[in-house]
Amino acid sequence: MTGVPRRRLLGFAGAGVALAGAGAAAGAFATKASPEVENVAAAKVPFRGDIQAGITTPAQDHMHFVALDVKTKSRDELISLLKEWTVAAERMTAGQEAAENGAVGGNAEAPPKDTGEALDLPASALTITIGFGPSLFDDRFGLKDKRPERLIDLPRFPQDDLDPARSNGDICIQACANDPQVAVHAIRNLVRIGFGRVAVRWSQLGFGRTSSTTRDQATPRNMFGFKDGTRNIKAEDTDHLRDHVWVSKEDGPDWLVGGTYLVSRRIRMHIEIWDRTSLVEQEQIVGRTKGEGAPLGQANEFDEPDLHVKGAGGIPLIGEIAHIRLASPEALNGARILRRGYNFTDGSDGLGHLDAGLFFVAFNRDSRTQFVPMQQALSTKDDMMEYVEHTGSGHFAVPPGVKEGGFWGEGLFR
Amino acid sequence: MTGVPRRRLLGFAGAGVALAGAGAAAGAFATKASPEVENVAAAKVPFRGDIQAGITTPAQDHMHFVALDVKTKSRDELISLLKEWTVAAERMTAGQEAAENGAVGGNAEAPPKDTGEALDLPASALTITIGFGPSLFDDRFGLKDKRPERLIDLPRFPQDDLDPARSNGDICIQACANDPQVAVHAIRNLVRIGFGRVAVRWSQLGFGRTSSTTRDQATPRNMFGFKDGTRNIKAEDTDHLRDHVWVSKEDGPDWLVGGTYLVSRRIRMHIEIWDRTSLVEQEQIVGRTKGEGAPLGQANEFDEPDLHVKGAGGIPLIGEIAHIRLASPEALNGARILRRGYNFTDGSDGLGHLDAGLFFVAFNRDSRTQFVPMQQALSTKDDMMEYVEHTGSGHFAVPPGVKEGGFWGEGLFR
Ligand code: HEM
Ligand code: HEM
Repeated sequence: MTGVPRRRLLGFAGAGVALAGAGAAAGAFATKASPEVENVAAAKVPFRGDIQAGITTPAQDHMHFVALDVKTKSRDELISLLKEWTVAAERMTAGQEAAENGAVGGNAEAPPKDTGEALDLPASALTITIGFGPSLFDDRFGLKDKRPERLIDLPRFPQDDLDPARSNGDICIQACANDPQVAVHAIRNLVRIGFGRVAVRWSQLGFGRTSSTTRDQATPRNMFGFKDGTRNIKAEDTDHLRDHVWVSKEDGPDWLVGGTYLVSRRIRMHIEIWDRTSLVEQEQIVGRTKGEGAPLGQANEFDEPDLHVKGAGGIPLIGEIAHIRLASPEALNGARILRRGYNFTDGSDGLGHLDAGLFFVAFNRDSRTQFVPMQQALSTKDDMMEYVEHTGSGHFAVPPGVKEGGFWGEGLFR
Repeated sequence: MTGVPRRRLLGFAGAGVALAGAGAAAGAFATKASPEVENVAAAKVPFRGDIQAGITTPAQDHMHFVALDVKTKSRDELISLLKEWTVAAERMTAGQEAAENGAVGGNAEAPPKDTGEALDLPASALTITIGFGPSLFDDRFGLKDKRPERLIDLPRFPQDDLDPARSNGDICIQACANDPQVAVHAIRNLVRIGFGRVAVRWSQLGFGRTSSTTRDQATPRNMFGFKDGTRNIKAEDTDHLRDHVWVSKEDGPDWLVGGTYLVSRRIRMHIEIWDRTSLVEQEQIVGRTKGEGAPLGQANEFDEPDLHVKGAGGIPLIGEIAHIRLASPEALNGARILRRGYNFTDGSDGLGHLDAGLFFVAFNRDSRTQFVPMQQALSTKDDMMEYVEHTGSGHFAVPPGVKEGGFWGEGLFR
């Protein structure tokens, strides 16, 4: 461990720093987040814009993710809920309470409109991102025709061990912030507003990010101890974002243009087995060195992996089934995804081990040709599969950003 | 929400700042943590001293707590384990890997001696604190005679709903740090070292502290939205620490002098019911205002509660069964405890709600006359009980600090 602080500590204590991000146009996203503000507690990320925040926003340190079942059968109630959520979400990302005078300034004889646990906390770069699952597009709300063809029920992958209680959902909400209490407060207040109309299906707390999403961010490490996110799509890669993340006009449906698809996988990592594997073996499984995170055969983290270079005996240095080969665009007809996952530790497994892992979140433009073949390759060939277990899964269509005066997902109801 | 950052951001980026704390003598603990360093990522808390760190250390933002069952039957193996743990714990609190060249610099053909996920992270004020549960003092290790009289099996309290899978344990280890990945890494590596000798019984991640333990720290909020820790014993209250926390020579047993007793209670909070309660009712249940945290009848958070002042109709402003009255030294023959709890959110409860609450951790000198009567009073009279459910419990004897050349709990084996 070196002395490099995870949160860069700068001579900086100002409030109200706005991070660019959500406001940028989908097709021309080129905002470079300044390293000086990336993780400052007071940072505010604009809620409205052409795209939703929380996708290309510099990945914050903490996440609280919830999947909800809609309980009301009324289309109008669903619409009002989305409108109420939009107001509350915008307020909270600005560092305000869920409603004006929400926690203590309102009618004292009534339940407070904000639950209060973030009262003294700054915005902490909070982003709140919504997505709609396949099940929302059934008969209940007249949305059947709106279901994007690409919003498939994900196939069963080899070795899947999915818990229905950790999978799917009509709606997902991802809250990310540099203070976990701010992220938890956001989800909790949205759930509270939805009381009677939605119920929590599952929720996941992530305590440490596993991906950098801008070139400025130091690459964090996952629970296998490896740097994760090195060759991720970054906010600066505008061509990749256009080609691999944002839904275009040609793709359709209309209501989703400027949106994307979110795939969540709760991946339990059998860390105690991993920890008994030699360093060499770990590095071969991943295809990178553990310390520096360099591709095997190269010296530095950001060197391009050379998938052809061979070592002794003509064996490729990055093995035929190394994780980074199987998941690489080179092996997948150019397919890429934007990863934005978090580490988790959910108590113990009842069998003497910690229940730890990676809450994998990825965004892509067409899961059928990006995430699915990638996970298909990994789940059939990747040696890493011996150490992991996919225990939860979700697939959600993430609408574009909210325009002035608009509300979350309004295009769905036009 | 105001612009006051939770982590005070100062023009300060130095590494290796040592926080005083563990080194001070138990009876004369008078160290005042400087606000300038309290939450700096690079802060290092000394591991050795007369008392263990992690009790009066300024409460860090995150906690990972584990309870372990000892699987070996050999006293010698238990002793070696405690020695190995001591080395690793001291290293990690200094911001180092669990072993020299642990993650990547050792023999590449062997499993690494450090799991690597904290490789680039600074010490983050990590403290690691050990405690021994009643079950350790059975026949297995010849420790029967060493069991402190005060280390009782906690009684069953009214409304207890304890899950054995979240309760008790032979050994507990509490890791607190300002970066959750650092705390999780510490526990995970100690568990790894113990492989075959100990098994994880339960573990709990806390994402936000609920108590301040020094006068400099802003009081954090719990999941009911109230400031928590206002009238806690603080590191500066040397008389209270002597009278209510540290085991003295007269108390005995010898091996525990300078130690204390830790009580853990996993308290599920039914936040969705609480959130439907009016502000007035919430404040009456607690006995304090929600915004400022002032005792009812007073203006400011740190005003002394006046338990006698009456309002309209001669009814006490702080009700007869207000939480802060029932738990006050005035109501409990002067009993006080040092609280050092954390908020948690563990996914959902399968019934449509978040599984959130308070992981209550308290230190006291004699749980029989401090925690037990307090919890007895609360569990029979406190209206707050309608909103909470105690789902886990633990009681541990926390040995004194580790001297130079010594190891965790060595007094036990003399
Ligand atoms: C616990 C499970 C996983 C772990 C520990 C893990 C770990 C890693 C690591 C260490 C890297 C190298 C650094 C980097 O470029 O980010 C990597 C790369 C990558 N992983 Fe994973 N991964 C996991 C699951 C997945 C899954 C489920 C997918 C998608 C289906 C995936 C897709 C990728 C991709 C696309 C890359 C970049 C490949 C390249 O172009 O070099 N990973 N992963
Ligand atoms: C979820 C459960 C609990 C919640 C939400 C809660 C909340 C609070 C709050 C808001 C205060 C006032 C501020 C302060 O002085 O810290 C307080 C005070 C206190 N609580 Fe709790 N508490 C809980 C459980 C417990 C338990 C289990 C105990 C011990 C058995 C306890 C002991 C105390 C004590 C000793 C005080 C200070 C009383 C005084 O001297 O003014 N609390 N608690």
